[in-house]
Amino acid sequence: MSTATVPTRTETDTMGPIEVAQDKYWGAQTQRSLKYFAIGKDTMPRAVIRGMGTLKKACAIVNTDLGKLPADKCELIIAAADEVIAGKLDAHFPLRIWQTGSGTQSNMNSNEVISNRAIEIAGGEMGSKTPVHPNDHVNMSQSSNDTFPTAMHIAAVEEVTHRLLPAAQYFRDALEKKRLEFNDIVKVGRTHLQDATPVTFGQEFGGYVSLIDRDMVRIEQSLEGLRDLAIGGTAVGTGLNSHPEFADRAAAKVAELTNLPFKGHPNKFAALSAHDEFVFASGALKTLAASLMKIANDVRWLGSGPRCGLGELSLPENEPGSSIMPGKVNPTQSEAMTMVAVQVMGNDAAIGFAASQGNFELNVFNPVMIHNFLHSVELLTDTMRSFADYCLDGLTVNRATVDGYINNSLMLVTALNPHIGYDKAAAIAKLGHKKGLTLRDAAIESGHLTAEQFDQWVVAERMTRP
Amino acid sequence: MSTATVPTRTETDTMGPIEVAQDKYWGAQTQRSLKYFAIGKDTMPRAVIRGMGTLKKACAIVNTDLGKLPADKCELIIAAADEVIAGKLDAHFPLRIWQTGSGTQSNMNSNEVISNRAIEIAGGEMGSKTPVHPNDHVNMSQSSNDTFPTAMHIAAVEEVTHRLLPAAQYFRDALEKKRLEFNDIVKVGRTHLQDATPVTFGQEFGGYVSLIDRDMVRIEQSLEGLRDLAIGGTAVGTGLNSHPEFADRAAAKVAELTNLPFKGHPNKFAALSAHDEFVFASGALKTLAASLMKIANDVRWLGSGPRCGLGELSLPENEPGSSIMPGKVNPTQSEAMTMVAVQVMGNDAAIGFAASQGNFELNVFNPVMIHNFLHSVELLTDTMRSFADYCLDGLTVNRATVDGYINNSLMLVTALNPHIGYDKAAAIAKLGHKKGLTLRDAAIESGHLTAEQFDQWVVAERMTRP
Amino acid sequence: MSTATVPTRTETDTMGPIEVAQDKYWGAQTQRSLKYFAIGKDTMPRAVIRGMGTLKKACAIVNTDLGKLPADKCELIIAAADEVIAGKLDAHFPLRIWQTGSGTQSNMNSNEVISNRAIEIAGGEMGSKTPVHPNDHVNMSQSSNDTFPTAMHIAAVEEVTHRLLPAAQYFRDALEKKRLEFNDIVKVGRTHLQDATPVTFGQEFGGYVSLIDRDMVRIEQSLEGLRDLAIGGTAVGTGLNSHPEFADRAAAKVAELTNLPFKGHPNKFAALSAHDEFVFASGALKTLAASLMKIANDVRWLGSGPRCGLGELSLPENEPGSSIMPGKVNPTQSEAMTMVAVQVMGNDAAIGFAASQGNFELNVFNPVMIHNFLHSVELLTDTMRSFADYCLDGLTVNRATVDGYINNSLMLVTALNPHIGYDKAAAIAKLGHKKGLTLRDAAIESGHLTAEQFDQWVVAERMTRP
Amino acid sequence: MSTATVPTRTETDTMGPIEVAQDKYWGAQTQRSLKYFAIGKDTMPRAVIRGMGTLKKACAIVNTDLGKLPADKCELIIAAADEVIAGKLDAHFPLRIWQTGSGTQSNMNSNEVISNRAIEIAGGEMGSKTPVHPNDHVNMSQSSNDTFPTAMHIAAVEEVTHRLLPAAQYFRDALEKKRLEFNDIVKVGRTHLQDATPVTFGQEFGGYVSLIDRDMVRIEQSLEGLRDLAIGGTAVGTGLNSHPEFADRAAAKVAELTNLPFKGHPNKFAALSAHDEFVFASGALKTLAASLMKIANDVRWLGSGPRCGLGELSLPENEPGSSIMPGKVNPTQSEAMTMVAVQVMGNDAAIGFAASQGNFELNVFNPVMIHNFLHSVELLTDTMRSFADYCLDGLTVNRATVDGYINNSLMLVTALNPHIGYDKAAAIAKLGHKKGLTLRDAAIESGHLTAEQFDQWVVAERMTRP
Repeated sequence: MSTATVPTRTETDTMGPIEVAQDKYWGAQTQRSLKYFAIGKDTMPRAVIRGMGTLKKACAIVNTDLGKLPADKCELIIAAADEVIAGKLDAHFPLRIWQTGSGTQSNMNSNEVISNRAIEIAGGEMGSKTPVHPNDHVNMSQSSNDTFPTAMHIAAVEEVTHRLLPAAQYFRDALEKKRLEFNDIVKVGRTHLQDATPVTFGQEFGGYVSLIDRDMVRIEQSLEGLRDLAIGGTAVGTGLNSHPEFADRAAAKVAELTNLPFKGHPNKFAALSAHDEFVFASGALKTLAASLMKIANDVRWLGSGPRCGLGELSLPENEPGSSIMPGKVNPTQSEAMTMVAVQVMGNDAAIGFAASQGNFELNVFNPVMIHNFLHSVELLTDTMRSFADYCLDGLTVNRATVDGYINNSLMLVTALNPHIGYDKAAAIAKLGHKKGLTLRDAAIESGHLTAEQFDQWVVAERMTRP
Repeated sequence: MSTATVPTRTETDTMGPIEVAQDKYWGAQTQRSLKYFAIGKDTMPRAVIRGMGTLKKACAIVNTDLGKLPADKCELIIAAADEVIAGKLDAHFPLRIWQTGSGTQSNMNSNEVISNRAIEIAGGEMGSKTPVHPNDHVNMSQSSNDTFPTAMHIAAVEEVTHRLLPAAQYFRDALEKKRLEFNDIVKVGRTHLQDATPVTFGQEFGGYVSLIDRDMVRIEQSLEGLRDLAIGGTAVGTGLNSHPEFADRAAAKVAELTNLPFKGHPNKFAALSAHDEFVFASGALKTLAASLMKIANDVRWLGSGPRCGLGELSLPENEPGSSIMPGKVNPTQSEAMTMVAVQVMGNDAAIGFAASQGNFELNVFNPVMIHNFLHSVELLTDTMRSFADYCLDGLTVNRATVDGYINNSLMLVTALNPHIGYDKAAAIAKLGHKKGLTLRDAAIESGHLTAEQFDQWVVAERMTRP
Repeated sequence: MSTATVPTRTETDTMGPIEVAQDKYWGAQTQRSLKYFAIGKDTMPRAVIRGMGTLKKACAIVNTDLGKLPADKCELIIAAADEVIAGKLDAHFPLRIWQTGSGTQSNMNSNEVISNRAIEIAGGEMGSKTPVHPNDHVNMSQSSNDTFPTAMHIAAVEEVTHRLLPAAQYFRDALEKKRLEFNDIVKVGRTHLQDATPVTFGQEFGGYVSLIDRDMVRIEQSLEGLRDLAIGGTAVGTGLNSHPEFADRAAAKVAELTNLPFKGHPNKFAALSAHDEFVFASGALKTLAASLMKIANDVRWLGSGPRCGLGELSLPENEPGSSIMPGKVNPTQSEAMTMVAVQVMGNDAAIGFAASQGNFELNVFNPVMIHNFLHSVELLTDTMRSFADYCLDGLTVNRATVDGYINNSLMLVTALNPHIGYDKAAAIAKLGHKKGLTLRDAAIESGHLTAEQFDQWVVAERMTRP
Repeated sequence: MSTATVPTRTETDTMGPIEVAQDKYWGAQTQRSLKYFAIGKDTMPRAVIRGMGTLKKACAIVNTDLGKLPADKCELIIAAADEVIAGKLDAHFPLRIWQTGSGTQSNMNSNEVISNRAIEIAGGEMGSKTPVHPNDHVNMSQSSNDTFPTAMHIAAVEEVTHRLLPAAQYFRDALEKKRLEFNDIVKVGRTHLQDATPVTFGQEFGGYVSLIDRDMVRIEQSLEGLRDLAIGGTAVGTGLNSHPEFADRAAAKVAELTNLPFKGHPNKFAALSAHDEFVFASGALKTLAASLMKIANDVRWLGSGPRCGLGELSLPENEPGSSIMPGKVNPTQSEAMTMVAVQVMGNDAAIGFAASQGNFELNVFNPVMIHNFLHSVELLTDTMRSFADYCLDGLTVNRATVDGYINNSLMLVTALNPHIGYDKAAAIAKLGHKKGLTLRDAAIESGHLTAEQFDQWVVAERMTRP
């Protein structure tokens, strides 16, 4: 981050002047943070920066409505904040996750960038803090301690609402499509990895659909709490230095700007010092991850082979497998998805730990929480779309293999109980097991029934219902 | 588990005869499990055994209603199951968590105990399986694969509903009582562990109350899914060997017996093979644990001292602290509570991992999931009641210390801004910091205002509102 | 814990008198703890109580050697401590894990029980603290803050040394026995769950042996730090109130009594306030758990079937599987082992969290750490022995299935490359895949080689070496 | 990743042709991966790419030494691999973590980039695979299944050896410097957050030094296993298609190139299918993280205030705190460090889970493991250096506060026991506690000793030793 060879301007804060590259909108506090927090490579997620832009815009409007901020300054802040929201100024948000635990420096980064961009729009001199001051105007009625948690919530709700849930629906619909396609194919069931009574592919895929349907409901439930915003609590939750109506108005304005039902958190002290909502919402993400792990594992096991595995499914071949070995298709989408599931579980552990560590009026593990949460959201979103497109879409059933198992499985013997009694049925199964016969051959060899009777009585499909 | 020196009877299963102590109701499969699964000391929780009792009773009634089970056998099963429910037969459920992953052996333990006890009531011979057969009658229309998950759900919902949530309410009410008691006491706020603008104890405790209130809502939400029961899925989810109406009737009967709104899970395949509901519910428990960690930490830090800590609170002295050092009261209830919080986080990690490992029609990590879930429920329940009774109830505020901080803190200087301007106010704070003066003394020494003006303008309480 | 109906005696501590059941050796502080910490059911593990007994005995001897404790009192303490070590007084250690975080109450429980039992041996009056006082004599030169961590270390090292490592060796030897038995059986290899080039069962089981061998080395490495004892640090690490030679002498005496190479921790401040050694050692346990999960999963997958799974292994049938379905053997030992692995991972998460939470001179998450550590040790120990005896011992290879895969797999085609070139080899594989032929049949049908050549060139066993 | 508007060339693999941007060295398989694995933003770490470069160079040399690869091709591969090692080609490694779980695509990315760059150096046509073929030459004697784990190990050992351990030493030395600087300052000890007997700052910081010293030893121990390389195992561990000497020679060559004592893993089957070494090494990282959490927490609590906290330490002021509140210095380095600790714990959970999920001959959770491991290494490295430079270096003791606590604490009363007896000493403490007196004043007021005697007998420093 050498500024020696690039043109710079002087920015100031209460600690004095510092040089900042002329082509960057950020100010003194951001510049200092780059020095003191050169830790890792994880930078503040785009969604948080966008959330900050939305919040700063909302606050400016409310401050003007309440008669605290002149309209012209408000317009300038809105113009700059809109660029932040649109992502035009992302290059001016260089700060790391591993900074002040309140996210103060990212709040100041927002204030500084909006201030300088607003000044530029107004034709002023960057760094002059005139006519738009980063603290007095952009941060008016706010504190890092309420803005950063608010931006975290906005980011989380927007990403979950606009990216994760639609991806889950997309994935769910891809599963449902396969459920319909495979609906009536009867196959061997497996419990304890052992042969069990028959099910249909439709039932298996219907189980997956059910999991994702319920996962979506749970994630949606977890959004309820995340829609409560800390804004208006200012430094310690009391709302000191803010108008009594500011909190609710600001939350309402964020709701209006995002078209999402945000509202003021009913208890700002809790909102600043805990972050229970992220623990709960991450738990919902982890539940989805567990479902995905199960589904992706089933698909790759059912697709194992081609000759020495279960071989019931054929997976689409996206990448070269073995150059000489036809049919060896590695279940790479399952592998990516299960790795994502593992990561989401690790991220969840970090979030729970972090949320438990608040002291008094503030929790100072904010950046690590939102980093892990949005990481989980992004990975889950992308892996579900990828799996739907590149694994489910081209998935086919190997009927010969599936039917072979059903015909070969001795578990169907239970269908004979009502006809010839338990003892004779068991004897047939034992005969088949001992001699390695199909159940049909064993039944006929036993003399207890005819081939005709067998075909009439042993119908796997009938065993897939109560 | 030597049976050599005690009178035994012979029990049988499909693997043959085995000796069982005459004074135990269990049968052959339970006896075998004791040999093959002598792993650790964790036994199946009482709540699961009770859930099994409830389920077996419900199934017997429904089987009789559906014309499958003779009424006299039903009555015998009910009588024995009622004893299981009441806890009279707990000594006959010796099996470990670390057994078959489907919980099959605990299902058989239930069947065997109910069968033998029913036989005993009927005046029959234990082990004879007449007139009540463990498989044919007690387990009628059921499989381990649907009964054990059902008992898990019943146990979880009963324990959360009847034990955890009331304890949370009790703890919340104890916090609320203190909030009211301390409501108007103004104190220094702290962010980043640093002195910040004032809050009231009422606000701090109100934050805690808010956390627990929301935790209870979240836990209640997580019960919704847990109230969906797997019963009726039988071995693989298809309901094979059960009456088409069995699933819904059995769930309704469980609801009737427990007076809790259980219903049939809409997708039995998902219900047997995943256990998403436990991941989500455990996430809600973890959220509560994070809240408790925060609250317990605040209380012990505010009670630190007596002379070299923060010293704002005095904790009740339950146990001897230092024999020579008056006032040294170790925050032992906080220590127990934070240890519980740590355990709940570990338990949650185990549950998420376990729930992700289902294959095909069954997840075989059932016992480890319910073990960890009920462990969390019990610890959270007990620590909240203990903390309420033995820490919150006797908690007092050290007014002198609290007031001293407020008077001593330089943060109150911000109240002077509107009267003498930011620059003079800052100069006063700097003077106080440099010379180690109270803010009042520094203000007077600065000559910018009189003592009278100071007392009129600097009122901490006013700073606790917007 | 009602004492109303049982005869009691009066015990006292600095908080005054309290009634204790006459048939219990514990004193006032233990009795109070039962009231204030009725949290959960987890009691202090036997190994910690034994460690306390060993430590109290060692301290008494050293105190006498240093001229601080009269020899007759020392003899009495030794006599009582020996009973604690032998497990004769376990019923007198009722306290929970969820108590004071320093383990103070369990230290006092030890002091009280040894005191009262010593008094009894001396013919004195229990509760009189004469001639052996729980604090002045049994706890001489000690503090809870150094004794409890010392007992934790003794317990951990003893359990790992005497139980876990021998069980790991036993399990490893059982694997090695199977490696030798199956050594030359060539089988299909599988990567990504897909058919791959051949390996031998000897190689697969040799891989398992290697994992356990290395796990044992790592666990042994982690014992190094655990052998450093905190004793002699007393309350804050300074050793106040102890003889300058006490620390090293006491550690040496513990080493002598246990015949294990304990020594004094080089830095008592670290020893009291952190517990890094448990995090590291738990990491070694977790590594073993990951190995076990892998091995147990491989065994159950290879044993899946009997007809619709991989079917390469037959597992011993310990419990009844399906009553009508011969050959359906549920892999229950694998299920127990993988559940244990999951639990160990959860326990590890709790330990790491707890160990990070020390403040200043003390970490007050001691009981939760040792609880989880010893839980992991016990479960790993028991599951390895159980798996060795009840799964590995009776494990057999289904040669027909194994050979069928090898003969059927198209992956062997690579052996033809040097003889007929890549292109022709690939064409043969494609022919086999398309027509569902064995590789041999496809090769012959292709006309590129004779059956004789095929049998000469395609030898799977040769493909299992570089 | 639109290639529509940029000049492209055609690359091919077994699935056919595909367009690749002309300015990229990668080939067909990398290009396909970009399409199929557009999941998240985490790309393969630089250290793994460098490890791949080192490995490809080593393998080329060994292949030439063994007479399998022409010398001129070897030279070309070396030249290109050297550029990979030097980081000149990082822009050509765009693949994500969330890809094939074996890391196959990153292995192919390496092969393709080295091939094309070697071709370019040779004046050939990129994509022609002449004269250096990505599979036949760059990947000669190798498989993704052994190269990727090998690159993981090289990356881990290099980063830990060259970055983490030096940073730990740097941090440890900064702690040691402060230990020496503060060595003799006596201060109040604190246990359970309560006032305890005195310690010195030297003792506290010495405890921190001890933790880091032992952490470094443990991390070094964990490197032992990581230095064992999988190379030579090829696809399934058998070494098929490699020269019998290849494995050991390649490992030795890696050792030579890196100047680190790598050697061949003694069991290639374990090396490919588990990844126990990462679980153990991550456990060592977690242990360091727990130590850092403890140290960073101590520093911020001791620096809490300035007036209403413990106030024993003054932290350097790096960023603006409150603009009006002098002395309010937020402990931002502690906040970053504790957030890192939390993340490392989450990463460790992911690694343990992933390592447990291997099946048969391969674990396909490689990328997620190395991602989390290197993330932890990088964050720990950076936060320790940052904390040393920006927190420890400028840390000062507030002697007045520290001395005030010592003078004020009643815990020093224990020093009077030998002189006036326990009872009188206790009475003095009670008097002080009741009236809020200093211990000295209470002692004098009690009449049990003179001021002179008090000053002679009560010397805190003497209480900091046995």
